[in-house]
Amino acid sequence: MAVTAQQMLMAQPVELDGELPDLVARAVEALGACTVACTSCAGSCLAEKDPGSLADCVVACTDCADLCATTARMLLRPLANTRRSTGVTVLAACIGACETAAAECARHELMHRHCRLCAEACRECLQVCRELLAAL
Amino acid sequence: MAVTAQQMLMAQPVELDGELPDLVARAVEALGACTVACTSCAGSCLAEKDPGSLADCVVACTDCADLCATTARMLLRPLANTRRSTGVTVLAACIGACETAAAECARHELMHRHCRLCAEACRECLQVCRELLAAL
Amino acid sequence: MAVTAQQMLMAQPVELDGELPDLVARAVEALGACTVACTSCAGSCLAEKDPGSLADCVVACTDCADLCATTARMLLRPLANTRRSTGVTVLAACIGACETAAAECARHELMHRHCRLCAEACRECLQVCRELLAAL
Amino acid sequence: MAVTAQQMLMAQPVELDGELPDLVARAVEALGACTVACTSCAGSCLAEKDPGSLADCVVACTDCADLCATTARMLLRPLANTRRSTGVTVLAACIGACETAAAECARHELMHRHCRLCAEACRECLQVCRELLAAL
Repeated sequence: MAVTAQQMLMAQPVELDGELPDLVARAVEALGACTVACTSCAGSCLAEKDPGSLADCVVACTDCADLCATTARMLLRPLANTRRSTGVTVLAACIGACETAAAECARHELMHRHCRLCAEACRECLQVCRELLAAL
Repeated sequence: MAVTAQQMLMAQPVELDGELPDLVARAVEALGACTVACTSCAGSCLAEKDPGSLADCVVACTDCADLCATTARMLLRPLANTRRSTGVTVLAACIGACETAAAECARHELMHRHCRLCAEACRECLQVCRELLAAL
Repeated sequence: MAVTAQQMLMAQPVELDGELPDLVARAVEALGACTVACTSCAGSCLAEKDPGSLADCVVACTDCADLCATTARMLLRPLANTRRSTGVTVLAACIGACETAAAECARHELMHRHCRLCAEACRECLQVCRELLAAL
Repeated sequence: MAVTAQQMLMAQPVELDGELPDLVARAVEALGACTVACTSCAGSCLAEKDPGSLADCVVACTDCADLCATTARMLLRPLANTRRSTGVTVLAACIGACETAAAECARHELMHRHCRLCAEACRECLQVCRELLAAL
């Protein structure tokens, strides 16, 4: 049974208010799943017979994987007040990257199962990130 | 229900032999959990009342988080033959980083719950990575 | 003689308008220098005799290194219009992280030469990033 | 005038023996230049008219950028003895990734200037990394 983000966040020597710990844990899980989906989808696009038509999708997924990973790292370090406004801006950038990758993958989802799954992971991630952004 | 590494790997337009796909999926999941645990543990150590005694633990966890994240990215891109030997070496380096972080965290696990959980995540990760390494 | 960001950007099969290519090249160089400075400064803080007093500095530098590296990666992929607004938000987040790290390091710059150098690298980086943000 | 890796390494509160500090500084610079070159080259390949023929190059460059960035981060944190063997293995993996990317880019260097520059950056990087590996 794997150690979860929720367990790690609950073991931090700081206390977050209200529903924030639960939202951060859910965001970290969704960001992790989206990093995996986008990295794999970009690699799959490049292994298809015609990667040329998927070039924009590769770029959007690579951006999204980079930003999701960085956002998760920031959220996992206890969010002191001095870091909160940067955290909010990173989250907003991450939501933008998820939107772009979801839209790009949706264009190919009838053709490629990895694009359909990746669009789904991006949409789940941006939904949770929007909830967290509203609560921060 | 989150999109999983297993689903993404099964949607890749390449076929891996035998038990390899399953092992890669399990490794990606364990590497992701270990990245989260190590990033959070390093942040928690720095938020403790006496971070001075935990400095080596922060460094070991940060190394480990960096290497686990990079290893997962490499494994998620379809492993062509030209990349296999580098993949094997990265996996070996990652196992080394997990061993160091597990040992460092184990020294503090009676004192800090985040170190106990993180040591557990590192041990799970290095176990799965060793199985994958043996199969590659 | 090392290959530079300027050379790589000039070899891209896209054309950027006006002064933008030059600004992007300078930003990528400054972001790279700041990533190095912040990673090294965080490591140095943890190797000092009293890392406890430098814990906030380690966190600020680690955030900053993560964001500078991610921002440079985004800027190095040709900036299509669909990615521009996310690029702008990432740049804004990166400037925030540089400000926090510069302020944190400035508090210790009389004591630790690595903090003085790192504060300088952060200030140079945020200056160039602000110029680029104004031009995007 | 940008802050350099050499300056940051000389400001670390640890002493490295003999020529090691100079070699580490040169490696960090070369790894940074190679990260930039590989990230930009992968993005340029995807922006070419026929990205299909460059798909393997994109994957090799992306692997290489990831590993160079991670290796630089590990080298920038003071190399305690407990971390040395992992550092050596990471460096070996990084050299492998540089070799693969240099070979892949060399196949396209008459056609694409970004591939020629990137192959050059990879070769410089693996040369310096081999010198450092021999000294560790």
